[in-house]
Amino acid sequence: MSLHGKSLIAGVIGQTGGKTFRAVNPATDASLDPEFHEASAAEANHALEAAAIAFADFRQRSGAERARLLETIATEIEALGDALLQRANAETGLPLARITGERGRTCGQLRLFAQLARDGSWVDARIDPALPDRQPLPRPDVRRMLIPLGPVVVFGSSNFPLAFSVAGGDTASALAAGCPVVVKAHRAHPGTSELVGGAITRAVAACGLPAGVFSLIHGGGATTGIALVKHPATTAVGFTGSHTAGRALFDAAAARPHPIPVFAEMSSLNPVFLLPGAVQERGAALASGLVGSLTLGVGQFCTKPGLIFAVRGAATDAFLQILADAVQAAPCGVMLTRGIRDAFVENRGKVTAVAGVQPLASGSAAANPARTESQPSVATTTAREFLAHPELATEAFGPFTLVVLADDASQLAACAAALEGQLTATLHGTAGDLNGARALLAGLEQKAGRIVVNGFPTGVEVCPAMNHGGPYPATSDARYTSVGTAAIFRFARPVCYQSLADDLLPPALQNANPLGLMRLVNGQPTRDPV
Amino acid sequence: MSLHGKSLIAGVIGQTGGKTFRAVNPATDASLDPEFHEASAAEANHALEAAAIAFADFRQRSGAERARLLETIATEIEALGDALLQRANAETGLPLARITGERGRTCGQLRLFAQLARDGSWVDARIDPALPDRQPLPRPDVRRMLIPLGPVVVFGSSNFPLAFSVAGGDTASALAAGCPVVVKAHRAHPGTSELVGGAITRAVAACGLPAGVFSLIHGGGATTGIALVKHPATTAVGFTGSHTAGRALFDAAAARPHPIPVFAEMSSLNPVFLLPGAVQERGAALASGLVGSLTLGVGQFCTKPGLIFAVRGAATDAFLQILADAVQAAPCGVMLTRGIRDAFVENRGKVTAVAGVQPLASGSAAANPARTESQPSVATTTAREFLAHPELATEAFGPFTLVVLADDASQLAACAAALEGQLTATLHGTAGDLNGARALLAGLEQKAGRIVVNGFPTGVEVCPAMNHGGPYPATSDARYTSVGTAAIFRFARPVCYQSLADDLLPPALQNANPLGLMRLVNGQPTRDPV
Repeated sequence: MSLHGKSLIAGVIGQTGGKTFRAVNPATDASLDPEFHEASAAEANHALEAAAIAFADFRQRSGAERARLLETIATEIEALGDALLQRANAETGLPLARITGERGRTCGQLRLFAQLARDGSWVDARIDPALPDRQPLPRPDVRRMLIPLGPVVVFGSSNFPLAFSVAGGDTASALAAGCPVVVKAHRAHPGTSELVGGAITRAVAACGLPAGVFSLIHGGGATTGIALVKHPATTAVGFTGSHTAGRALFDAAAARPHPIPVFAEMSSLNPVFLLPGAVQERGAALASGLVGSLTLGVGQFCTKPGLIFAVRGAATDAFLQILADAVQAAPCGVMLTRGIRDAFVENRGKVTAVAGVQPLASGSAAANPARTESQPSVATTTAREFLAHPELATEAFGPFTLVVLADDASQLAACAAALEGQLTATLHGTAGDLNGARALLAGLEQKAGRIVVNGFPTGVEVCPAMNHGGPYPATSDARYTSVGTAAIFRFARPVCYQSLADDLLPPALQNANPLGLMRLVNGQPTRDPV
Repeated sequence: MSLHGKSLIAGVIGQTGGKTFRAVNPATDASLDPEFHEASAAEANHALEAAAIAFADFRQRSGAERARLLETIATEIEALGDALLQRANAETGLPLARITGERGRTCGQLRLFAQLARDGSWVDARIDPALPDRQPLPRPDVRRMLIPLGPVVVFGSSNFPLAFSVAGGDTASALAAGCPVVVKAHRAHPGTSELVGGAITRAVAACGLPAGVFSLIHGGGATTGIALVKHPATTAVGFTGSHTAGRALFDAAAARPHPIPVFAEMSSLNPVFLLPGAVQERGAALASGLVGSLTLGVGQFCTKPGLIFAVRGAATDAFLQILADAVQAAPCGVMLTRGIRDAFVENRGKVTAVAGVQPLASGSAAANPARTESQPSVATTTAREFLAHPELATEAFGPFTLVVLADDASQLAACAAALEGQLTATLHGTAGDLNGARALLAGLEQKAGRIVVNGFPTGVEVCPAMNHGGPYPATSDARYTSVGTAAIFRFARPVCYQSLADDLLPPALQNANPLGLMRLVNGQPTRDPV
């Protein structure tokens, strides 16, 4: 499958002439063909202008039509076959098995949002019929539903080249809501992005939708990104990546003449609290589970456990010994890019350089720098040091975690209280441990978007009840998830219709309930007609 | 009923010692007793610290307990009797009948949010039970619900001294969600604020809740306001007022180390489109309805119609004549403050000074400046001028409107397309007019939060289906309403629980569904247990 190396602007292959760059295979350090051409500012503008024009049509399409688009995208991605898997593997170093699983998740996610769009009840339709005889004043007929916001700019993330990239959760939820999407491709996997972008472009055409529903922009990092965020036609932004980049986009969006929401998923330490009964009962299982979670994807998950809290004692000492053995036995892994590897080494160094931090163990196999490898490693410190040195809560995006040893439960609670916002917080405990940890649980609810008990934070289920979000700096807006069906709410706003004749109303709000939605009528949920 | 003139900080009357100010009766220009004392920075900090401490308790209270608080506040406000009505009348110039009606609305609103809190289904509980046998990986048990954000800062507005002030919709929805509230009292009605603040303080105590659930701060405009928004304990802000003030709060919140959402309802022209059939059929009724809407509350409503669009012709000429007569016959009204009156005169002047704007009519009674009065007035211009001069869309907060005359329907559509974000947009038309105006209607959906047909935008129903919001600059966040039960979503965020034993889950998510909520189980709405 040959690659053209250009942007895809509303169905048309972009221009050459800008700066060029190549993907690099991190496992070989080899540059990959072809050259990719950065889009010009005019091309980026054109993508958003086309999106704004397409929006006037696309937003009026039925949920069934949006569903068909999402399903067609999934089919087109599957039709790319092994070429997609091989290119993603070459560009990211992620194993073929992982890429294959991620493709399944990506297509599953597209189909889940298709179901949501087809079902249609997500629009939260509400109807308060007229009360002409009410005293002292009659009540008019008032109806409300969610409608799409407008063009959405999505930034592909490096660590999920399929599931959080061109056709990932942000794109799927925006399209399901009725919003055109302009994707800024991640520079680490431009070929994967082009293949998936082509699949979406074909799906848009096959469904008879305006081409401006989708564009893919290759560009030079911050400048192109900020320009996309500042474009007047942009109405919302989805982003997964570093705190620095996420905050820059957030700040640019907030400073616009007309500010827009930025949904940036930025950083998380994903603290894990090991309660004493659990450590006593199953320290070995905890150690192997933690090393598995820590090294999954070479530690390059937003939900990687980066902090482990435990209370000192003989059982904890035994656990640490098993943990050390497991880490030593864990292989090195190829990281996504040299930049990510270097940042990992730098941030891990910031933590391990703090006085009072001791290395516990690292992988016994040496890392091969030519293969962009990193060794897994674990260090330990005390709760007292953790509370005294905020830099110990630096996220090192890779296979490293810091074990914090507390003297007692109250020190554990103090550490929990000192945490910043997180995507997840995990508790391991026996029934007795957990019953005694209700205050800790309540405290962690205030810090995290997801509480995991007796499990591991990596592995984010895509389902209606999932929340992948959390208080700042985990995300820029704790009110929304980027995984699961509730992600659609990021890209919609309510509109209210007062005293419209039935035939002027959108089908979702018509008396007969032709779409069969669950609606709130006089404040009560029902599928009955009005 | 005597007033102490001080802030109310977590149940305790504040200090003297800061700057002082007095309320002014706009109808007499007389300063009113007592002196009010601005809170110190330490007092403002203390209010938010107390709110943060109270939150840990209050957020765990049941919906029934929150409902009892809201109902007790309503009862305490009613128990203030005529003293409240008289003080509000003296501080605002609003007639007693209006204040009485607004008190009814305020208490009705508190009781509506009490119902919502007691019912509890607003938490959008979602349950995806474990699938232990799923291939290739088991699905964990995943459950999600909305929980309160934390302390909320509310800015009282000038034009609704009860319904959008100390115990208004922002406070009611925040308390219903489980968030403590710190109100910055509006300087134009400090006595009314103190009375209502006292009612809330008594209700908090009577319900056995921590005193930090509520504080009322008197302060010096921007400085105090910005300090409240920047306080680390503040998690969200509700505001109704000018664009300048709202944007300043938004900018301060966005620039925090941890940004927080600001729900600012700021400005709106509330365009009204008169379609030719309606003008032909009932021009006189339209003219009297428009003058009523325009002069209601002396034009000091966020939803006042400030732009009226019509197509030239004999029927429109006749309509304009009747409109002119009705405006001439309309009395002057006492405005809320000298500052508001002066800003109204200034902004109206910006519009009428544009070449191509002609006065149509003003009230024949002269305005008495000692009574802070303004005359109602209407001017006209052409669509061509409107499209050429963006300053014609300046909001003049008071009894003025600009009639824009278009040559034809396409010019009408061009004017609609040129509008900024609005709270409302209104269409008057016969069935035939409206059927032919579907494209106009679709365009207005993109500009406004509420579409009104054959009615007037003033008079905002408080109900589940209401949306009082709209694209920027109408509000700072079009995704939320400040009126109606959906306003509660501003002050909540989701949290997800993975693999928690039933007795560790909040009641809303327990298998037996002890609260009887409507929940989404496996994506389907049901009240059944799991």
